[in-house]
Parts: sequence; structure tokens; C-alpha cells
Amino acid sequence: MDVGKVSIYEAAQNGDFELVKWIVEYSRASLNEFAKGHRTALHFAAMSGNLEMFRYLTERCGLDPLCGDEELVTPWDIARENGHAEIDKYLEDRYGHRYEDFYRNPIRSGFFPDPSICRVGDDYYMANSSFIFFPCIPISHSKDLIHWEIIGHAITDPNWAGLDELDGGRGYWAPDISYYNGKFYIAATYRLNDTGPVYRRQIVVSSDKPQGPYSEPVFIDEDGIDPGLFNDDDGRRYMLLNRGARIFELDKTGTRKISDATLLYYGSNKRAPEGPHIYKKDGYYYLLQAEGGTGPGHRVTVARSRELMGVYEPCPYNPIMRQDDPDALIQRCGHGDLVETQDGRWYMVYLCGRKIGDGYSILGRETALDPVTWTADGWPIVNGLRGPSCMQIKPFPEKDMYESCSALQSADPLAKAHNDRAISPCGLPFDYMTTRSFNKGDIKYICDDPANSDWKSLKDGQTFVIHASAYPLSDINSRNIVLRRQTDFSFDYSVIMDIPELMDEQFAGITGYYDENTFFEFGLTNRDGKNVLYSREHIGTEDRITYGCEVPLEIKAVYLKMETEYLKRVLKYEFIYNESSKLDEPDSKLTIFSTLSNVYYLCDEGYDKGKRFTGALVGMYAVGGIDNNLYVSFHTPTYTERK
Amino acid sequence: MDVGKVSIYEAAQNGDFELVKWIVEYSRASLNEFAKGHRTALHFAAMSGNLEMFRYLTERCGLDPLCGDEELVTPWDIARENGHAEIDKYLEDRYGHRYEDFYRNPIRSGFFPDPSICRVGDDYYMANSSFIFFPCIPISHSKDLIHWEIIGHAITDPNWAGLDELDGGRGYWAPDISYYNGKFYIAATYRLNDTGPVYRRQIVVSSDKPQGPYSEPVFIDEDGIDPGLFNDDDGRRYMLLNRGARIFELDKTGTRKISDATLLYYGSNKRAPEGPHIYKKDGYYYLLQAEGGTGPGHRVTVARSRELMGVYEPCPYNPIMRQDDPDALIQRCGHGDLVETQDGRWYMVYLCGRKIGDGYSILGRETALDPVTWTADGWPIVNGLRGPSCMQIKPFPEKDMYESCSALQSADPLAKAHNDRAISPCGLPFDYMTTRSFNKGDIKYICDDPANSDWKSLKDGQTFVIHASAYPLSDINSRNIVLRRQTDFSFDYSVIMDIPELMDEQFAGITGYYDENTFFEFGLTNRDGKNVLYSREHIGTEDRITYGCEVPLEIKAVYLKMETEYLKRVLKYEFIYNESSKLDEPDSKLTIFSTLSNVYYLCDEGYDKGKRFTGALVGMYAVGGIDNNLYVSFHTPTYTERK
Repeated sequence: MDVGKVSIYEAAQNGDFELVKWIVEYSRASLNEFAKGHRTALHFAAMSGNLEMFRYLTERCGLDPLCGDEELVTPWDIARENGHAEIDKYLEDRYGHRYEDFYRNPIRSGFFPDPSICRVGDDYYMANSSFIFFPCIPISHSKDLIHWEIIGHAITDPNWAGLDELDGGRGYWAPDISYYNGKFYIAATYRLNDTGPVYRRQIVVSSDKPQGPYSEPVFIDEDGIDPGLFNDDDGRRYMLLNRGARIFELDKTGTRKISDATLLYYGSNKRAPEGPHIYKKDGYYYLLQAEGGTGPGHRVTVARSRELMGVYEPCPYNPIMRQDDPDALIQRCGHGDLVETQDGRWYMVYLCGRKIGDGYSILGRETALDPVTWTADGWPIVNGLRGPSCMQIKPFPEKDMYESCSALQSADPLAKAHNDRAISPCGLPFDYMTTRSFNKGDIKYICDDPANSDWKSLKDGQTFVIHASAYPLSDINSRNIVLRRQTDFSFDYSVIMDIPELMDEQFAGITGYYDENTFFEFGLTNRDGKNVLYSREHIGTEDRITYGCEVPLEIKAVYLKMETEYLKRVLKYEFIYNESSKLDEPDSKLTIFSTLSNVYYLCDEGYDKGKRFTGALVGMYAVGGIDNNLYVSFHTPTYTERK
Repeated sequence: MDVGKVSIYEAAQNGDFELVKWIVEYSRASLNEFAKGHRTALHFAAMSGNLEMFRYLTERCGLDPLCGDEELVTPWDIARENGHAEIDKYLEDRYGHRYEDFYRNPIRSGFFPDPSICRVGDDYYMANSSFIFFPCIPISHSKDLIHWEIIGHAITDPNWAGLDELDGGRGYWAPDISYYNGKFYIAATYRLNDTGPVYRRQIVVSSDKPQGPYSEPVFIDEDGIDPGLFNDDDGRRYMLLNRGARIFELDKTGTRKISDATLLYYGSNKRAPEGPHIYKKDGYYYLLQAEGGTGPGHRVTVARSRELMGVYEPCPYNPIMRQDDPDALIQRCGHGDLVETQDGRWYMVYLCGRKIGDGYSILGRETALDPVTWTADGWPIVNGLRGPSCMQIKPFPEKDMYESCSALQSADPLAKAHNDRAISPCGLPFDYMTTRSFNKGDIKYICDDPANSDWKSLKDGQTFVIHASAYPLSDINSRNIVLRRQTDFSFDYSVIMDIPELMDEQFAGITGYYDENTFFEFGLTNRDGKNVLYSREHIGTEDRITYGCEVPLEIKAVYLKMETEYLKRVLKYEFIYNESSKLDEPDSKLTIFSTLSNVYYLCDEGYDKGKRFTGALVGMYAVGGIDNNLYVSFHTPTYTERK
């Protein structure tokens, strides 16, 4: 038996149980290693269908049937895919739930960082950071904790946003949403540029409806980040914020500071303690914190005290959430917030980042969910201290209002479920945003209005008419970029752009956007009096521009498309010659303009300038110079996950 | 206030509480960082004597008053040293114990790896690995779990040891000591060279007295390491061993295998699972394992089952012992064994290695002790999951039979407490050992026998007369090297060697020894018919030899001394001219022969050949060639810790 040359993966895939046993028990192999693609021996055993071996690896070797590979595919997924009903049945019995009763993390794909959550009755509400994007601080709603829809924003009035002067990565950080005496409250840090003596202020807004409109922000001047409101049983109100967990008292309105800040507890890990939340339960004040920085060291810890003002005792089981496997896809797990369900169970939402390539969380910091249980000695622990789950039992399997996802399908039901046509008071559909703010009329969204449609046969009725920005995308004064989250590693994005009359130094097209420091453009510009296709990668001070063919005069519109596979972007186009043209079968006649082999610069880790905590966006832009009168129409912006 | 230039360490040392608070709560400092020497802000606060600040850093910032710096000095030590009685009182109240009631880890300094422990009545017994050193497997005794004395060895008959052909690092690995039906049992792995098809066998010996003599080893042929005996309540007996935790049944004598081995549980970390032990408590079988390999990833994990044969459920709090701070002095914590005290409390002995320089555990793998508590849900956790303690409450403070140690004194009471004159049946004092084995008469130990003393004025009555080895120290056939453990980072070691008649290629002197691959010698040899001083560093295939002055004929003896400071060795000597010479005040007239700047090759990490799991030793040698008749007398071998 030449076992030296057979890996446990091959043996498992071949269903050779005796050889697998020999390798486990007598060879020097270690089961904490992974095959290519971050697969364990159990992934391979799942292919074989050998139930006895699958049980041995699960029960005797402790391998996890719910452990995700580099695409979050689990052994259970593989067993299902291969039709191994015996293994499927074994796992149903093991977990007491059907395969369809599981959800996948992250529950919200793409730029949904720093989640905060509250429940009112049977309804769950979440707030996330928005940084320099407008409208500010998306508020989302869910009935089942898994499927979320944006229903409003904390700030929708450009005059209240105060984003105009701010560098990328500043703006509204880490909001906290709470409900108290019939009102929803949102607190957040307003992060200014580093130039002045004051660069962090806290805001509070409130509304009697979760979707808003919310009140004009009230400022509280205490330095720190991640403010959260805590309302004690005695009717006194407090704000918590970092560094460490500090606390000060607020007046009854929750908007005025009436005591000095004092340190409750610095934290267990003691690096970058932030995101403090307090929950009162069974006579204890539980203090939840995020620690380790929002990168690879991120984690959630807890401490408790019988008295609000401490002394706090750290939980011996800290960190209660942390990704210990540096090679797993889901990383950066931290910044959690707990919620108790209407039937007395507990969950935690927290941020994570899925790292691909050499460590790029291209989708930004996303939102994950895991169950919280309380130990016999009264400590909350998340997912049994096993770190982020990849596949987890749904909080309300019975409520599931969507079709069950097939095993390898996107973990993002939002992309499918969301109604893009719901519109914010600021005029943008809820899933769209722009940088900093915009003047009324500069971004016009037209939906289902045939009167405005020039290209009926090509459109499904959505059009953005964008007034060109006076400044290029690389300037913090650039405006009117219309953006949405990249929510999948592989996706297609296309628009039909009416070809405008362009002058020199005018540009319009589609973009992959992070902030003013890093983005790419693909569209049209004017060179020597002629329209030409071009693409530009802007990385800090570097501009990589490629010009393409001249666009003949008779062309009325251009179909612009980017096809995306992880960090690669293929830019394609097709010209539309007249009003009656019809695009052929998708992609049949598209021409490749260029291929960007690696857009790592569209994520936090891909470039080092300023604050980078957001995620990759995709959208439309027009740049026209000072006092321009350039308006560009973009029809049928279409984002589709690539399978 | 130019705080940018003041560190929290300076502020704390200056007692500037307001500035310390500002740095903690408003600056970007992180409290998980360390000052030079691995000191926290609390070490510096302890210097200042500011109780309010000391409390703030302890209670609000969670800094640990028992956290050791790079020499294991704690904030409490510093407060005591500086006479800050208020802080001392605060800490006594905090811990409910006086400063004198604490012990220090490791409890056994130097080469005492892979500890196993058992209790009989009020007496505790420990076994440790001995590898190729003889006598094999030291058995130690303690009344208080802190002070230990070697009382015997599992194998003292050279004919039973079977070490003659074995490479360094092989031999007796990871013994397990247990007591059953009036008998002590020791199981261990007999690790052969890698050349044959069988390279690991298990042995069992027994005795009705803990000190022995033990029975001739019985071999059990099952591959694996770290065998342990488990006796179930139903009278059935089992052997556990790695890989993972495997089990097979033994006959009533505990020496014959009567079933096939089967895997109970592979482990939680799943790298190099080893050292399995089972304890039955409250209806559960608790399975303790060492995982991660005996280097930086080492840890202890636990799993449990209602039935001996499983299925085992891993503890959610795993690892229950692990050093999480890569910069702490105490590293490599793992390979534990639990013991219940006579009054129902629990402790774990485990191995650790104190790493100095660039990661050298020069003292080898040592033995540490920490308390075990049981969580409300019935899991054992060690030292509250805080990793290895540096300073910990003694298990039996009232039993303390030795003077209280001053704060900065050695953690090794053994060095002081042990009676060197207790002698093993093999003829060596208990703390001494030799490589592989020796023929009766080749090492003669003479103690308190004035008739044998030639140099009365210079000796305290201990002499080793060594028959020169036929082979040099670099040969596995080298014999009669007399060695003891290095138990301190800084120590002096000296002997008075009668100058023998040497021929060419004969050598005698003192040595710093790891194994046949790495050691140094300092002594005399013959060159061109004359005796000369020399030193040799042997590192793998490399020999660095230095020759010194000729030794005049009238000289009768030489005082050889090594002064050691961490990885540096200063080799010194003084000639003794006649029988009435008297050494002057220590060191007054010693001449430096040479300085070895770094003997990293005397530890596991310092060289890469074969199996390196032991530790630095120090001793005497003589090398004479085939069939030599050279006997060398070494008087008064003296090992002293340098303060």
C-alpha cells in the first residue's frame, strides 16, 4: 500500500474508509490542514457518499459538515449536490433541521458595515455605516433576521448631511439604532477630516417611524467613535462610546450630555476597543465591545457588572466571536450587536469581510448573523464559540417567505428580493447612493414612465439622467456619481447610455468605484473633436488611460457592460445606431474594450491612503467641467450576479 | 500639554493619573502593547505608588497585577520592592491572599518535560520524559504540588534501558504515572531510531513503591506516542495513546493488549493531537489532549462523553490552556495532566518553555502548574482560561515548608531544596544523569568519604571519578558523561579536576551539553606531549576549537568554571599547584579562558537535526579512546544560580 503518495483527500473521495482511517490514526497527517480551495477531508468524503466514513470524520475526527470552503461550499452542500440521500438524512438528524432550514453568512452582501440592530414587536431594524455616501445611514427592515430591505435613511436632506468638505472614508460612522418610548433613535459618529482640533462629533436623530423622516441631527461634543444609547430601567439615559467603553448621561430627550464621560471598562483584548453596547439581563449589565481593530484581529468581547457604573468583570470565554482560521473566506469578524427575539432567543449581527486573492475584502465589510446562547454561568457566547458560521439554522425557518436557495447560490437574497423602485425622499432608489450630496435635479430618476423613454425596446423603464459634475471623480468636489453596492464576487453590470454631445475633457460612462482615490471609468470622452471610447484606472496619483475607437456620428447610444470575476473586470460595449435597434441576444455581438486584470484598489486593503472602511461600488457618472450644461441619460442599469 | 511625547509608561511611572487617563481614553495608544522588557503600564504604576491610578489600570483597564515581564517580575513584585504598602494591601484584599501565599511558574525549572501526575492520599507523584538519558524517567514526590524532589526512576538497570543504539532525542518519551490497586504504574513510549519498520513501542512498568524498584519493562506493540493507563470503574483497564486519542483494552495486569485500538476523538485543534488522558467525573468521561505540536502552537483541549467509547463532544472553551501572547516569556504550554487534591480541588501540571533571545527555550521544556475549575456546565478550565499564570496562589499555602521566596528570586525551589546526596540504585545521585547507560564502575560517585579525598581543603566531599569514554562526545557511543539540568538562565558551574596523565586525543573537563550533535567542552587535552587548556564548540558537523596555555608539570589540579548569563558562557580557570593550595576568595584570581557569546545550540530551537525535545545540561566528561585506562577525578561539582 503505497500510502505515502495518497492524500487523505483522495482516499476520502475514493470512499476508501480503511485508508482514511490509517492516514488519520497512523500517519503524520494533521487534520487541521486544508486541501486546495480550503476543503477538508469531509468535503471529499461527501463526494464519495460513504456514510460510515462521513460519520467517522464528523464524529471521531470532529470535522464540520457545515464548514465552508473558499466559496463557502460545505460538505452538506456537496452531499446534496451528489444526491447522497443517506448523508443528507444523517445530517438532518444530527442538526434536527432540514437542509432548507439553513441560511448562509454573510446575510447582507457588500458594503453593510458596523451593523446595529433593534426589535420592535415582530419587526427587526438595522442601521449601517454610510461614510461619505448619501443618503446617510441606511435603515433596513426584516421579519426573519435573514432577509433585509432598506426602508429609509437617517439623513436624507443634503443640507443636514454636512459631507461636502469631507475626504473619502469620513462622514457617518457606526450608527446605533434603538427604540425607546415610542421613538426610534439613531446615534452615530460624524467623522470630520483630520485637519481641525475637533475631528469626531456624535449625532443623534429620532423619528416615530423606523423609515423616517428623522429629525435634524443634534450634535454632542465628546470625542470618540461608535456612540450607542442605553436606557436604564430607572428612566435615566446614557451614551456609550469608545475609547474603551466610556459612558456619560444624557437628558430625557437623549440628545444633551449632562455628565462627564467616564471609563467603564477598557476591554479584554485591549487593542482599539470600540463599538460598546450595554444590555441588561437577569440583574447584570452586559457590556459588549469590538476589539482588535476592524481588520484581521477583529473580535467581539463581553464583560459584566451588577452595577451600571462597574467594576466590570471580563468574560472568561472572550473573545465570544472571532475568526481563528486565517485561511477561511470569512474574516474580520467583529463589531456585534445583540438582539432578543420575540420568543426569548438571542442573536448577534456583526460585521465580517470575505477575503479573496492575497487578502482583499473586495465586497467591503458585510453583515453576518449568528445565534447567541447563554452559558450556565450567565455569559453570552456566539455560535458556540466556533467563530462565524458559514451555514446556520434560520432563526425563523417557518417564516421563510422566499424560495429555498440552491446549495451553491448566492448568499445574498437581498439582490433578488429587493424592490429597486422604492424611492428615498432624496429622490434616489433605496439601494442607490451618491458621493457626499447632490442638488435637486442633478440626478433625475425616472421609472416606468414611457413618456420619457426614447429607446423603448431596450429599456425596462429605469433611467437616470445625470447632470455632469464640475469636477472629475478624483476630486472630493466630484458630484452626481450614481452608485450601488457590489454584492457578489462575480457579476455583470450594464447600462445603455445615450451618447451626449461631448466637449474636450468631458466624460461619461460606468464606473467601479471605491472613493476619490481609487476607481475606474469606462465610457466616452471627446478627443480632438471626436467621441472616443476610453477607460481609466485611477489609483492614488496614478492614472492609467486607454483610448479606443472613434464613435461615428450616426450612433445614438452605447451599451456599456462590465463582466466581473472576483478581481478581474472585462469591459465590453456595443453601439446602437438608431432608435429601432435592438440588442441581440445578450453578449452575442459585444466587443471587448479592455480587461482590467486586478482591481484590488477597489477595497480597503488595496491602497493605503486615508480611511478605507467601505467596499466596492458600481455605477454611472458624467464629468463636464465648471458650469457645464451636460446631462447624460443612462437607461436600464442592470446588475446581475454571475453564476 | 505635549502628550505626543509622553508614553503612558512614563506618565504611569511619574504617578500622573490625569495624563494616564487621557492617554487611555482619548489617545490612540492601545493597552495590549508592552514597554521594553514586556512591561505593562501597571508595572510602571506600581513604581509610582499611586493607589488610585493602580486601581484604575487594574479595574477599569483590566491590566493584570500578576502579569510577568520578561523576567516574570509582576506589578505586585514591584510595588512590594518599592515598599508601597497601600498597593500591597489592595492586592491582598483583591486576591484574598498574602503575597507570600503565591508560587511562581514554572514550578520545575529545566528539563522536566511532559509531566504526568497522580495522587495517593496526601502524596503527589510526577513522572517526566528522559529521552536518551539514564537512569530513565524520573519519579518525583511532593506534598504541596510546588516543591518536588526526585525519589527514583522507572528504569535504573542499564540492561533494561535499551538506549545504547539510539540517536539523541529518542528513548523514553512522555511517561504516564498512575496508581491502581496498591501499585504504581508507569507507561511510556520507547522511541527507536527511524531506520526500522517499527520505531515506536509502548512500555509498562509497575512497583508497589513510588520510588521503585520498578519491574522490567513489558512491551506493547501498538504504534503511537504518549501512552496512558485508564482504569474504569467496572475493573476494565485501557491504554490511551495518540494519534488523536486512541484506546485499546488491556488485561487485568495492565500489560497485555487484548483489543484493537480505536479512535475516540481526534482533537479540537487537529494538529498533532497527543498526550491523551481520561478522567471520570460526575458521569462523564473527560478526555484531555495536547494539540498543536510541542512548539509555539501547543495547547490543551478537552472533550467529553457519557460513554467511554464515545461519541465525544469537544469543550466549547477549548483550548483550556494556551499561551496567547507571543511575546510573553512562558511559551509552548501544553501536554497537561489533571489531579484532584485530597480536599476536592483540581490542578493541572503541564509543560512550558521559557523563550529568550530570538525564541530559544534554553532551559528545555519545564513543568508548570495551574488551578483547574469546573464551569457551571461541567467543563474543566485552567487558570480561568487566562493561559499560564506567572504568579498563582499556592495549592496549600499552610503547608509551605520552605522560606518564602523574595520577589525576584528563582522560581525553582528545587535547586535549593533538593538533597544532592540521595543516590539512585544505579549509583548516580538523583539529580544526575548520563547519556544512554554506563558500566558499573565507570562512573564512581564518592560522597562524604574523607579517605578518598586528596584535596581536603578544596572539597565539600563530593567527587565523581569517571572512566574516560572510548568515543568522543559527538559519537552516540560516547559514555560516562555526568550531567545535571541547567535550571536557571544565569548560573555558575565549577569543578576541581585532578589533572590526569593525558595522551594525544584524550580530553577531560566540563561541558554544556544538549546531545551528540550540539555541546561544548572546556578542559584539558594533550598536544605534542603537553597538557593544554582547550575549549570546543560542536555544532552538527562544525567543530570550533580553541587551545590555551600549556599546563606546567607541577600543577596538580585545575579549577574549571563556567559563568553563564542567558546564552553567554564565560569559561574561567585557576591552576592548583599542590595539595595544600587553597582557592582564594571565589573568582579573585580566576583567568578567563574564552567567552562563548551565544550557545543557542544547547536548546530545541537552536539546531535542526533529529528530535530535539530536551534542554540544556551541564556536567563533566573524559574521553580516552578505545580500551583506555584513563580515570579522571572531579571534585566538588558546584552549580549556583547567579542573581
